[in-house]
Amino acid sequence: MDEFKLIRTSGTARAAEFNTLHGRVSTPIFMPVGTQATVKALSPDEIKNTGASIILGNAYHLSLQPGVDLIKDFGGLHAFMKWDNPILTDSGGFQAFSLSETNKITDEGITFKSQSDGSLHFIDPEQATINQIKIGADIIMCFDHCIEYGASQVEVEAAMNRTHRWASTCKQTFYEFGDDNMQSLFGIIQGGASTELRLKSLEFMSSLDFEGYAIGGLAVGESKTTMYDIVNLCNRYLSPEKPRYLMGVGSPEDLVEGVASGVDMFDCVMPTRVARNGSLYTKHGRINITNQKFRDQEIAIETDCNCMLCSNFSTAYIHHLFKAKELLALRLASIHNLTFMANLMTDIRESILNDTFENYRNTFWQTYKTANNIKNDAVRN
Amino acid sequence: MDEFKLIRTSGTARAAEFNTLHGRVSTPIFMPVGTQATVKALSPDEIKNTGASIILGNAYHLSLQPGVDLIKDFGGLHAFMKWDNPILTDSGGFQAFSLSETNKITDEGITFKSQSDGSLHFIDPEQATINQIKIGADIIMCFDHCIEYGASQVEVEAAMNRTHRWASTCKQTFYEFGDDNMQSLFGIIQGGASTELRLKSLEFMSSLDFEGYAIGGLAVGESKTTMYDIVNLCNRYLSPEKPRYLMGVGSPEDLVEGVASGVDMFDCVMPTRVARNGSLYTKHGRINITNQKFRDQEIAIETDCNCMLCSNFSTAYIHHLFKAKELLALRLASIHNLTFMANLMTDIRESILNDTFENYRNTFWQTYKTANNIKNDAVRN
Repeated sequence: MDEFKLIRTSGTARAAEFNTLHGRVSTPIFMPVGTQATVKALSPDEIKNTGASIILGNAYHLSLQPGVDLIKDFGGLHAFMKWDNPILTDSGGFQAFSLSETNKITDEGITFKSQSDGSLHFIDPEQATINQIKIGADIIMCFDHCIEYGASQVEVEAAMNRTHRWASTCKQTFYEFGDDNMQSLFGIIQGGASTELRLKSLEFMSSLDFEGYAIGGLAVGESKTTMYDIVNLCNRYLSPEKPRYLMGVGSPEDLVEGVASGVDMFDCVMPTRVARNGSLYTKHGRINITNQKFRDQEIAIETDCNCMLCSNFSTAYIHHLFKAKELLALRLASIHNLTFMANLMTDIRESILNDTFENYRNTFWQTYKTANNIKNDAVRN
Repeated sequence: MDEFKLIRTSGTARAAEFNTLHGRVSTPIFMPVGTQATVKALSPDEIKNTGASIILGNAYHLSLQPGVDLIKDFGGLHAFMKWDNPILTDSGGFQAFSLSETNKITDEGITFKSQSDGSLHFIDPEQATINQIKIGADIIMCFDHCIEYGASQVEVEAAMNRTHRWASTCKQTFYEFGDDNMQSLFGIIQGGASTELRLKSLEFMSSLDFEGYAIGGLAVGESKTTMYDIVNLCNRYLSPEKPRYLMGVGSPEDLVEGVASGVDMFDCVMPTRVARNGSLYTKHGRINITNQKFRDQEIAIETDCNCMLCSNFSTAYIHHLFKAKELLALRLASIHNLTFMANLMTDIRESILNDTFENYRNTFWQTYKTANNIKNDAVRN
């Protein structure tokens, strides 16, 4: 990617942009998750039409199916899945940790069992980097050791130190086999909920001079307050001249608060996962579309929403599709929620450019609290 | 519908057309099945892009979910599901027979258990007709008593006689509550595998002067030879001036043979159902896309196919989507198979218009037999 250009700040919120080989990314941005070379249920055109400009792929899943060498032979992930806009891949560290009950982590790497056929696999920082180079994503992530919330300080520190050693290997591997005209490598800050360890991790990762920095190891069970505290801490010390990516987060309210803190990039499976369960985002909170009250509602879910669902179909129709367990339901709901997220980020960015982000944030929370009948500020950063 | 216009015959194969309130239908035609107000996995635009010009809905399913009154309140099925081309609905007789193990059939009607919530429902020919009037399909079907293959001659005759009495009631109900400027009612020939009963049924149904005739009760377990014999028999005696619809049939080869016999309309869940299992139609036979040999195939399934799958994606990509159990696989495969069926019918129609259908049929079977390594004519009409 070319230089990260900070366009405007509004308080600590940032509007910025950078270019990749596959086009420009304007931040703050939400990246839909396309784990297995597809954003679940959506075609590439539909992803684009939701307003998404960069998506996330997962090197862990892709290395098992269809395999990174096959993707490379097909000209990379963009060509394989016919998505010509930017892609970021996660390294697989988080999945090797979270998806397998039988994983074994040593300084050398992670041994894990395939979810599909039970076969054993080993991945180390070098391999994880080479996999992502082959996949050809515009932004690739260091291989990290993610640790569960509630682990002891000693365990968190050991995982962090390992993550640091691995980051050095990833950087070295990328230097040897990669091409920084084609791809960028981001480092990941770990350190759990400890201020001391997070600061150590920040210092170490900054010393490696990555093209961007992710805040990892959050949204794994800690409270919202703890999460926001760590995010604030990281943003206070991260270089203002590099993109900041909060991994695996989150809900619309998390995005508003993340931006307020100074985050530029987000990804999360939530909008599409909850969509497939019939949970739809609206400006007045999440609704469960299978609720009987939607059975005969003629107007769209949101009359001012420009998505494929809202601009074509009644609320009653999408309610019917969910009740009848029809496949089209999953797609339309996913499209709606991703459009909601993209529109949210567009509105947020505009408010930053107009230096009215704090107004936007206040209005967002007023609506949110009214819709969810919340009396205090507990969930707010 | 307006007058059924026979444009051209080629042997006993027919090219014809008729208009409905929602547009013209050019026959021979294959109707994709959209049971529950959606062709599984497809949006209305995608259905249209496969080349389909008329789809089938099912009054049985729609009466349970979302309910026929709701559909009527939304301006009919076309408006509810945003499909503005012609629709034909099946009455529900076949489903009440096939889907429920606890159904009880009397002269009055059929009592059946809902598959979704176990509730008991009763449907009679009057209600089945009124349901379809409310749903607003362009072509609606008489309520019939479908009987399993292998039933005794006495049982088959009793079911046929009941179907005849019900057909009279359907006709009367349609006369009272329907509007033949809006909808057309088709009768259904029953009589199992018995020549004698089929001729009786033909005679009776013809006496009621329906706007079209369906050949029902086939593709329920009988041999291909028996099916073709019955279809040939019916076509020999059905009025040449009315459309002929072979219900629930079938495979590409069944369509070629059905047209050869004089059938104008077909419907079947098979193209979309097998698609969702990874079975794709090609000019050289059906392929199982999950076969490892497709893992790295760069070209499309069929390079001359204009469908969304073949014009965008490699064979390796759709193979991957199936291996990864991704939702997009089901849609792309369904689109391919429906496009294959529509293209098949277009080619067949053109050969009839050029009076070269018999050549077309011979070429089709040569390719089919080579692809399937078949030495004799057993499966051919």
